[in-house]
Amino acid sequence: MINDKLPKIWYGGDYNPEQWDAEVWAEDDRLFKLAGIDVATINVFSWAMIQPDEETYDFSSLDETMDRLYRNGTYICLATATGAHPAWMARQYPEVTRVDVKGRKRKFGGRHNSNPNSAVYRKFSARLAGKLAERYKDHPALVAWHVSNEYGGYDYSEQSETAFREWLKVRYGTLDALNRAWNTRFWGHTFYDWEEIVVPSELSEEWNGSRTSFQGISLDYRRFMSHSLLECYRLEYDAIREHSKDVPITTNLMGFYPELDYFEWAKYMDVVSWDNYPSLDTPVSFTAMTHDLMRGLKSGQPFMLMEQTPSQQNWQAYNSLKRPGVMRLWSYQAVARGADTVLFFQLRRSVGACEKYHGAVIEHAGHEYTRVFRECAELGRELQLLGGELLDARSAAKVAILFDWENRWALNLSSGPTVALNYVDEVHKYYDALFAQHIEVDMVGALEDLTKYEIVIAPVLYMVKPGFAARAEAFVQAGGTFVTTFFSGIVDENDLVTLGGYPGRLRRLLGVWAEEIDALLPGMSNQIVMERDWKKLSGSYECGILCDLIHTEGAETLARYGSDFYRGMPALTVNRFGGGKAYYIASSPNADFLQGFFGNLCADKNIAPLVKAPQGLEAARRIKNGTPYLFLLNHTDGELAAEIGSAGMTDLLSGREVSGTAAIPAKGVMILKG
Amino acid sequence: MINDKLPKIWYGGDYNPEQWDAEVWAEDDRLFKLAGIDVATINVFSWAMIQPDEETYDFSSLDETMDRLYRNGTYICLATATGAHPAWMARQYPEVTRVDVKGRKRKFGGRHNSNPNSAVYRKFSARLAGKLAERYKDHPALVAWHVSNEYGGYDYSEQSETAFREWLKVRYGTLDALNRAWNTRFWGHTFYDWEEIVVPSELSEEWNGSRTSFQGISLDYRRFMSHSLLECYRLEYDAIREHSKDVPITTNLMGFYPELDYFEWAKYMDVVSWDNYPSLDTPVSFTAMTHDLMRGLKSGQPFMLMEQTPSQQNWQAYNSLKRPGVMRLWSYQAVARGADTVLFFQLRRSVGACEKYHGAVIEHAGHEYTRVFRECAELGRELQLLGGELLDARSAAKVAILFDWENRWALNLSSGPTVALNYVDEVHKYYDALFAQHIEVDMVGALEDLTKYEIVIAPVLYMVKPGFAARAEAFVQAGGTFVTTFFSGIVDENDLVTLGGYPGRLRRLLGVWAEEIDALLPGMSNQIVMERDWKKLSGSYECGILCDLIHTEGAETLARYGSDFYRGMPALTVNRFGGGKAYYIASSPNADFLQGFFGNLCADKNIAPLVKAPQGLEAARRIKNGTPYLFLLNHTDGELAAEIGSAGMTDLLSGREVSGTAAIPAKGVMILKG
Amino acid sequence: MINDKLPKIWYGGDYNPEQWDAEVWAEDDRLFKLAGIDVATINVFSWAMIQPDEETYDFSSLDETMDRLYRNGTYICLATATGAHPAWMARQYPEVTRVDVKGRKRKFGGRHNSNPNSAVYRKFSARLAGKLAERYKDHPALVAWHVSNEYGGYDYSEQSETAFREWLKVRYGTLDALNRAWNTRFWGHTFYDWEEIVVPSELSEEWNGSRTSFQGISLDYRRFMSHSLLECYRLEYDAIREHSKDVPITTNLMGFYPELDYFEWAKYMDVVSWDNYPSLDTPVSFTAMTHDLMRGLKSGQPFMLMEQTPSQQNWQAYNSLKRPGVMRLWSYQAVARGADTVLFFQLRRSVGACEKYHGAVIEHAGHEYTRVFRECAELGRELQLLGGELLDARSAAKVAILFDWENRWALNLSSGPTVALNYVDEVHKYYDALFAQHIEVDMVGALEDLTKYEIVIAPVLYMVKPGFAARAEAFVQAGGTFVTTFFSGIVDENDLVTLGGYPGRLRRLLGVWAEEIDALLPGMSNQIVMERDWKKLSGSYECGILCDLIHTEGAETLARYGSDFYRGMPALTVNRFGGGKAYYIASSPNADFLQGFFGNLCADKNIAPLVKAPQGLEAARRIKNGTPYLFLLNHTDGELAAEIGSAGMTDLLSGREVSGTAAIPAKGVMILKG
Repeated sequence: MINDKLPKIWYGGDYNPEQWDAEVWAEDDRLFKLAGIDVATINVFSWAMIQPDEETYDFSSLDETMDRLYRNGTYICLATATGAHPAWMARQYPEVTRVDVKGRKRKFGGRHNSNPNSAVYRKFSARLAGKLAERYKDHPALVAWHVSNEYGGYDYSEQSETAFREWLKVRYGTLDALNRAWNTRFWGHTFYDWEEIVVPSELSEEWNGSRTSFQGISLDYRRFMSHSLLECYRLEYDAIREHSKDVPITTNLMGFYPELDYFEWAKYMDVVSWDNYPSLDTPVSFTAMTHDLMRGLKSGQPFMLMEQTPSQQNWQAYNSLKRPGVMRLWSYQAVARGADTVLFFQLRRSVGACEKYHGAVIEHAGHEYTRVFRECAELGRELQLLGGELLDARSAAKVAILFDWENRWALNLSSGPTVALNYVDEVHKYYDALFAQHIEVDMVGALEDLTKYEIVIAPVLYMVKPGFAARAEAFVQAGGTFVTTFFSGIVDENDLVTLGGYPGRLRRLLGVWAEEIDALLPGMSNQIVMERDWKKLSGSYECGILCDLIHTEGAETLARYGSDFYRGMPALTVNRFGGGKAYYIASSPNADFLQGFFGNLCADKNIAPLVKAPQGLEAARRIKNGTPYLFLLNHTDGELAAEIGSAGMTDLLSGREVSGTAAIPAKGVMILKG
Repeated sequence: MINDKLPKIWYGGDYNPEQWDAEVWAEDDRLFKLAGIDVATINVFSWAMIQPDEETYDFSSLDETMDRLYRNGTYICLATATGAHPAWMARQYPEVTRVDVKGRKRKFGGRHNSNPNSAVYRKFSARLAGKLAERYKDHPALVAWHVSNEYGGYDYSEQSETAFREWLKVRYGTLDALNRAWNTRFWGHTFYDWEEIVVPSELSEEWNGSRTSFQGISLDYRRFMSHSLLECYRLEYDAIREHSKDVPITTNLMGFYPELDYFEWAKYMDVVSWDNYPSLDTPVSFTAMTHDLMRGLKSGQPFMLMEQTPSQQNWQAYNSLKRPGVMRLWSYQAVARGADTVLFFQLRRSVGACEKYHGAVIEHAGHEYTRVFRECAELGRELQLLGGELLDARSAAKVAILFDWENRWALNLSSGPTVALNYVDEVHKYYDALFAQHIEVDMVGALEDLTKYEIVIAPVLYMVKPGFAARAEAFVQAGGTFVTTFFSGIVDENDLVTLGGYPGRLRRLLGVWAEEIDALLPGMSNQIVMERDWKKLSGSYECGILCDLIHTEGAETLARYGSDFYRGMPALTVNRFGGGKAYYIASSPNADFLQGFFGNLCADKNIAPLVKAPQGLEAARRIKNGTPYLFLLNHTDGELAAEIGSAGMTDLLSGREVSGTAAIPAKGVMILKG
Repeated sequence: MINDKLPKIWYGGDYNPEQWDAEVWAEDDRLFKLAGIDVATINVFSWAMIQPDEETYDFSSLDETMDRLYRNGTYICLATATGAHPAWMARQYPEVTRVDVKGRKRKFGGRHNSNPNSAVYRKFSARLAGKLAERYKDHPALVAWHVSNEYGGYDYSEQSETAFREWLKVRYGTLDALNRAWNTRFWGHTFYDWEEIVVPSELSEEWNGSRTSFQGISLDYRRFMSHSLLECYRLEYDAIREHSKDVPITTNLMGFYPELDYFEWAKYMDVVSWDNYPSLDTPVSFTAMTHDLMRGLKSGQPFMLMEQTPSQQNWQAYNSLKRPGVMRLWSYQAVARGADTVLFFQLRRSVGACEKYHGAVIEHAGHEYTRVFRECAELGRELQLLGGELLDARSAAKVAILFDWENRWALNLSSGPTVALNYVDEVHKYYDALFAQHIEVDMVGALEDLTKYEIVIAPVLYMVKPGFAARAEAFVQAGGTFVTTFFSGIVDENDLVTLGGYPGRLRRLLGVWAEEIDALLPGMSNQIVMERDWKKLSGSYECGILCDLIHTEGAETLARYGSDFYRGMPALTVNRFGGGKAYYIASSPNADFLQGFFGNLCADKNIAPLVKAPQGLEAARRIKNGTPYLFLLNHTDGELAAEIGSAGMTDLLSGREVSGTAAIPAKGVMILKG
C-alpha cells in the first residue's frame, strides 16, 4: 500500500490553487467532495511563489492550501516545485539555464529548463525539497512526495561537459580504456587528455537528433544525462528523507519516454508513478504495454497513475474528446495493470498559458453540470465503493518481454542497416500478438530475474550487456523458452561489435550464425514459409524491414525465406538447449505470424489465455492473497461476450454473480473476483 | 483622389534607374511613353547610393532621375530608401542588424534587415526621410511618398528586449498586472523584476514558429513588434510631414501578411497601398477578399495597387506566366475592388541578384516587341481613356466579414485543440460563399462601425476584445444579423479564457453554451443535418475540423450533428435578440452549406446579388456620386453571360450600350455604368 | 599506367590496421593473399596516432604496417591522414574547427572538420604530408599517394571571411567591378570598403541551403570554397612532390558531389580517383554516367576506382546487400568505363563507430567463409588472370555531354523560374537516352576540346562562360552537331543576364529567340508535337518543367507545342550554321522523345551503337593500341543476347571465342577483344 493513511485507490490529481483567487478555493472544495476526490497533487510549479528571491522562503500560501485541503478530507501528494526554476534565478545565475543540442545558451523560459549540472540549481532545488520536508513531514494530509515533474531534456553546457569528463573518468578509469570503448582510432579521434573530450552535440558529433559519428560517446552521453537528472532527483530525495522518514517518494515518469533509463531510475523511487496520455488513435494494446512496463520497472510492484486527462489534451496535433465512458474504461485499464491510484492532470483548468485547453475535472465552465464532471464523479463514487480490496494485488504472468533503454539508444544511434526499424514499435508487435490472445505479459528490464517466467521474449536485442547471455542460457537450460530476433546479439554495452559472427554472445544459445543482414527498401517484403504445419502456423507470412541471412549451427529450421536470393535460407529456427528452447525470428514478421507463433509457444507451456473472448475485449488479472481479480474491458462500441467458465465469480463493480458467458457492454468494465 | 496632380488611375510601377547606365534611361523614357506609364516609384533601395557613409548625402543621381522623369511626363511616388540599410552601417554599427528568432545575431545581408529598436537605425532612417522631404517637397513630379518597403520581420535583439520591457510597463503599469495577464503562476513564471523578462524566442518560450509556452508574452511580442516597426514608419512619416505638408504618405502592405496588425497601421497611413502577388492556382476569390481587406483597412477608402507583376514572379516554387489577358483582368479586379492605381513591380527587369526572373514591363529583351509589353501598353492606353471617372468611387456592401490580426495571432499561438484550423483559410470559406453568389462584402476590423451593415460575419472570433460584445449586441438589437462560429468567444485580449462557459462574452447574444470542443482527426468528419428545409438548405452537409458540443439557452436549433456521440446536439442555431438574429455555426461546414446559408440570410435581408451570372464570372461594384459602376470579370477560358436587367448601361471600356444579357468574353472585362 | 610497379588492375582497398591488435594483422595478411588483394590504402585517418601532440611525430606503427604489407606482397596507396584533425589540435587551436553555414562555431568532432583557411591547419597538414613523403618516398611498397580524404564541406569562419576578401580582390581588382558583377545596386548592397563584405551564410544572404538574396556573392563563395579546399590539397601535393618525385598523387572524389568544381581540381591531380556508392535503386545508367564524368575530368585518362563497398553501405536510409554477382558486375562496369583499379572501402570491417555496418572484404565474422569474401576472392583471381591487358585503354566516343559545376551552382542558386529543375537529373535524362541505345558518350567540361566530337550536347547550359559560345560556333561551323535546351544562354559567369534576348550568347548559333519561360505547376505538362515524321520521331511527346516560348530567327521548326496558350509555337528547332547543325529543345522532354531524337542524330552522323542488344544489357568499349575491348554487362536477372557481328572475338574472362550472338547470363560480364 502506498500509504495506509488512505487505504483505497487514490482519486484526484494535479491542483494549482495558486493560479486562482480565494473565492474559487471554496468552490474547489465543494466540487472535490462532489467528485469523490481524495488526493490532490499540489505545489508542482510553485517555486517562484515560495521563493521570490535567493534568501526568502514564504510558505504561507502553501500552509493555507494544505490545511484547507485537509479540512476538506483531501490528502496531499506534495511536489517539490522544482520542475521549473524561477525567473529571478535565471537572471541572477545564468548557469541554471541549459545549452541545447544545437549549442545555444538558453534564456529563461519554458519548463524542463534547468541545467542538471549547475551547482546553483542543485543547491537551490535540494534546499527547497529539504525545507518542504522539514515543514510538512508531519502534516496529517501528506501521503506522498512528488519530486520535480516529468524529468527530461538534455543539456550541453560547459558545466555538463566538465561533469561528463568526471563521469567518464569513473566509468573508464583511463583514456586508453575510453579510446578502446569508443573505437576512437576510427577517424583518428584518439583522446590524449580528458579535456579534449567535448559534449556530443550538433557542434561536434551529432546531427538530426539521433545521428552521430561516434556511437560510443553518444551512447555514454545519454547514460550520463539520464544519470545527471537522476542525481538531481536523488539530491531532492535525500533532502526529503532527512526529515520525512517514511512517506513514499516518487517522481512522475512518462512511459516510453526516450531520454531516461527508467529501470535505473526506478531503483531510487519508492513507488513508480507515471503520466498516461494516449490519443484517440493510440492502440489500446500500446497503452496496456506501457502500463505493464511501468509495473515492470519495480518488478511488479503496483504503481501510481499520476496523470491522465479527464477528456482532452492540448499538446497533440488533434485533441479529440475522450468518448463517453472512455475515461472510466482507461482508468480501470490502469488499475487492471497495476495502478493503485487514478489521478488526473488536472483538477481545475487553467485560465491562461499553454495548457488551458487541457481537460480537467472542473472545466472552464466552472460547475458540475458537464459531461466530464459527471463521468469523473461517477468514477469517484465507484472507487469509494471499491475501497482497498484491489490494493497491492500483483500480476502472475508467465511470459516476459524484455525492454531495455540502452538497447534502444544503441539501436536508434546506429548508422545502418535501416532507418525503418523502430525499437518500441517492434516490441509492441510482439506484445500485441500476446495481448490479442488475452495472455498476460510482464514487461521486464535486462536485469530482471528470468526464472520467474516460462517464456522470455527479447525482440531486437541488439545490445547484449555483460552477464545477460549467461542468464539467458541458464534460463533455457532449466527449461525456459527464449525468443529473440534478427539484428540481435550484435554489440556489447559499448556498442562494439561482438566479433566472430552474429548473434555474438547469443550464438551458442540460438544455434545459428547470421552471415549477412539485408535491409529492405520501402515497399519490399519477403516471406516466412513454414517447413511444415505447426499447430497455428502453416503456409507463408509476410516479413520485412531486415532479413538476417542465417545458417543453423545445431538449431532446427522451422521456416525459410520465400523469395530473393536467400530464398530457402532459414527464417525461423529453434535450438534445443538443455531442457528448453531458443527461437530465432530472422526478419520482422506480420501480426498473423506472431499470433500463431506465440499461440503455439503458450500452448507448449500450458499458458492459457485469461479468457476466451474476441479481440476488442481486453483482459487482465491481478492477484491478491491468492484471490484472482479478472478485469474485462470492452474497448469497442458494441457489447462483447467473454467465456469465463462455469465457476461463478462476482463483479466487484456491479456486485453481481457472473458465470458462463459474461456480456460486457460497449466501453464497459467488469472486475470478476474469484 | 490620392493627388489631384494626376486625376486618373495611376499607371506605372517600381523603377530602379540606379541599376542601369545612362543610355538605358533614354530608352526607358521612350518605352514608358509607349506603354502609357505616368507614375514611377523610385528610390526604394537607394540608401547606400545616397548616403555612402555616415556623414555624406549625395542626391545628384536622384535629382537627375526626378527631373528626367518629370520632363518625360512621369509622376513620382518617392520612396525613402530605408527598406535595407547600407553595408557600411552594419559594419560601423552592428546594432542595426537583427537578432533572429533562433537567437542568432545577423550580419549584413538581405533586406527586412534593420533592428527596429536600434537607435542608430531610427536616427539614420528618419534623418534620410527628412532630408528627402526637405529637398523634394516641391518637386513638380512628386505625387506620393512611399516609406521604406514591405515592412516585416521580427527582431529579438537586446535593444528590442529593453524596449519591450518599456512597452510592457506602459501596457500593464505593474508587474502584478502583467503576471496576471500572462497567468505566470502557471509553471511558476512569476516575474518580480522587469529585468527578468526576456524576449520570447527559440531561446526562451517559443519553438516551431508559432508554438509557445506562454500565449500572453508571445501575443504581446507580436503586438510589440508590429508597434516597433510602426514606430519606425511613423518616425519617417513625421520627418516627411515636417517639410512636405500635403503630399500623401503610404507604405506598401502585403495583404494577409501575418506579422503586422494592418488595422493599427492604417491609422497612420494617408492612403493604403499594397502588393498583390497571386499564383496561377490562387483562388480568384482569395485575391478579391484580399483587395476587400485592404479597402477595409481605412473603412472603404480607395487604395493603391502598389505592386503586381506584369507576368511572372521569381520567388514562388513554380513561377508560371500570367496567361494572355490575365494581367489586364487582374488589374481591373483591383480597380473593381477599390484600387485607384495600377502599378507594377517592376518597370525594367534587373540584370542580376535574386529578382532578375521577376517579370517587368520591360523584359531582358529590352524592347517593346514582347507579349508582356504589348499587354501593358494596351492597358496603359485603356486607362488613359478611362480617365478619372472611377476615382474615389466606393463600395456599398451590406455584408461585412470581420478579420482581426490579434485574433489571428491568438489562434495561431493556441496550444490545442487542433492544428488543422487556419484562420485565414476559414475566413476565406465564408467570403467565398458570398463571392460565388455575387454578393458584395466589406472586410472589416474589430473596431469598425457595424451599424452600416445588415449582416456581420465573424468567423472563429476566438478573442473578443473589450467592447466588442456590447457593440455586437447593439447591432443585433437594432435588427442586424450576426453570424459567428465554433471556437468563438473563448478568450479576452490577453488570451485569458472568459470563465463560466463558452462562448463567453458572446454567450448572451448567441443564446448557446458550448460545453465541449471536439477536434477531428484527419479524415474524420461529421454532418450538419437540417431540422427542416430552410429555403436553400435541406438535408445534410459535411463539416469538420472542430465540433462544438453546444446547448441552447434560448436559441433555436436549425440543424443538428449527424454522427458521433454528440449526434443530435445542435450544430446550427439562431437566437432572436431584440430586432435581429444571431447565428452560431458549431463546426466548420462545407461550401454547399455556406452558400445556402448565406443565400438564405441575404434573402431575409433583401440583399440581392449584383448580377445573375454563373460562377467564374466575378462581379463587383463601385459607386460615385450615386452612379453605380458594375464590374464584370470573366476568369474562365470561355465566354460567359450575365443578366444585367433591361435598363441599358454603358460599358466604359468599349463605350457600348448593354442591356438584358451581357456576354463577356474569356478573360474579358466590362465596366457597366448606370 | 598509374604505376608500373604493379602492371595490372589494382585490387584491394582501405585498410585500417591501427584499429586492430597485432594478432589480427597476421590473419589480414593471410586473407589478403586468399582474396588476391595486392593494394591497400592505409593511413587515411591516422593523424592523431602519428602526431599525438604538436611536436611529436611517431611513425613506428606505420613503418611496421608498410613493411608487413610489403612482405606479404601488398602494395600501398599511402594517405596523408589529414581527412580529420586530432582532438588535441582542436583544443589547442580552436581556429582549426569550422564555422558552419548556420553561423555556429564547431567544436571537435566528425570529419570534414578542418577550417581550410586556418593557417594552423594548413601548416600542420602540409608538414605531415611532407614528413610522410620524406620518410616513405622510396618504400618499395609505395605505388600512389592519397591526399586527405573526400574533401568537402564549406566553412564560414572569420579566417575564411578574410581570405574570401583577398580572393575577391584578386578576382575583381576593384570594388566597382565587384559591385557591378554582383549587381549590388539591387537592394542597396553597394560595398564601399572590402571589410564590409561578409561571408554569405544563414546570418547574411543565404537560407535553406541554396536560397540566396545575391547569386553573385553566393556563386563566388562556392568558387572560393572549392578553391580554398583545393589550396589545402595543393599544399600537401607540393609538400609530397618535394620529396617523392614520380609517385602519382591523387585524392578521392565523389562523382557528382555538389560542392567542389572537380574539373578545376583534376588539373592538379596526377590521376583521378573516386568513390562509387550506388544504392540498390540507383539507375545503372546513372552510375555509368558518373564513371564517364570521372573519366572526363582529365579528358579520358583512366581513373582509379578508389572505393566501393563489397556489399553493404551503412549511411543510406536502407542499406541493402549487393545481390550475388553484383559486386563483380559493378566492378567491371567501372573498368569498362575507364577504371584501372578496383578498390574497396574497406578490407576489414571496423568494430565500433559509425561505419561498422559498412561492408568489407573481411566481415565481422572474421573469416573467409562468407558469400562476400568468396565473391571478392573470385574477382581477385579473375583480375590476376586479366593482368595488365586493359590498362590505359581509352574510349573513342563521338558524342559528348557537357557538365559544368559553375552552371550547376548558378542553376541551383537561381531564384525562379522553378524548383523542379535539377541539373544533374536533367543531364542524366540525356545520358540515359544514349546509354539505352548503346551509344558511347564522353562527359566533358566546358573547357574541353569539342573538335574531337561529332555531337555535343549541353543540357540546360544556363551559364555561358567567356569563350564558350565562340568555340561552340566554331565546332558547328566545322560540321558538328550541337544540342542545347530551354533555359540556356541566360547568364554570364557572374550570373548576370545577357541582355537583348535569350539564349544570349548562344542565340546566333541557335537561330532562336526565347521571349518567355513558363514554369509548369506539378502535374502540368505540355507536348512536343512533330511537324512531320522524322525517322524515329513522329507524333507527340510529353514535356514539362519549363517551356521556353521561342521564335525562330533562321532556325527551322521541327516540332511545336501541343497545348496551352503557346500551342503552335516552336518546341524543337534546328539551325544550320556553317557545315553543322544546332538544335534547341525548348522544354524538358520524356525519354521516348530523347531516344528517338538522339537515335536520329547518331544516324545522321553514322555513329553506330556498340552492339545490338536489349536494354538491361550495358555495353561499353575501351580501345588500346587500336584493339577494341567490348564490355557487355547484363544487369538483369535473366540471360540476354547481344548481336556482336560475325567476326569472332575472344572473351577475356572465359577465354572463349564468341561470334554472331553472345549470350550473357544474369549479372554476367563479357569482355570481347578484337
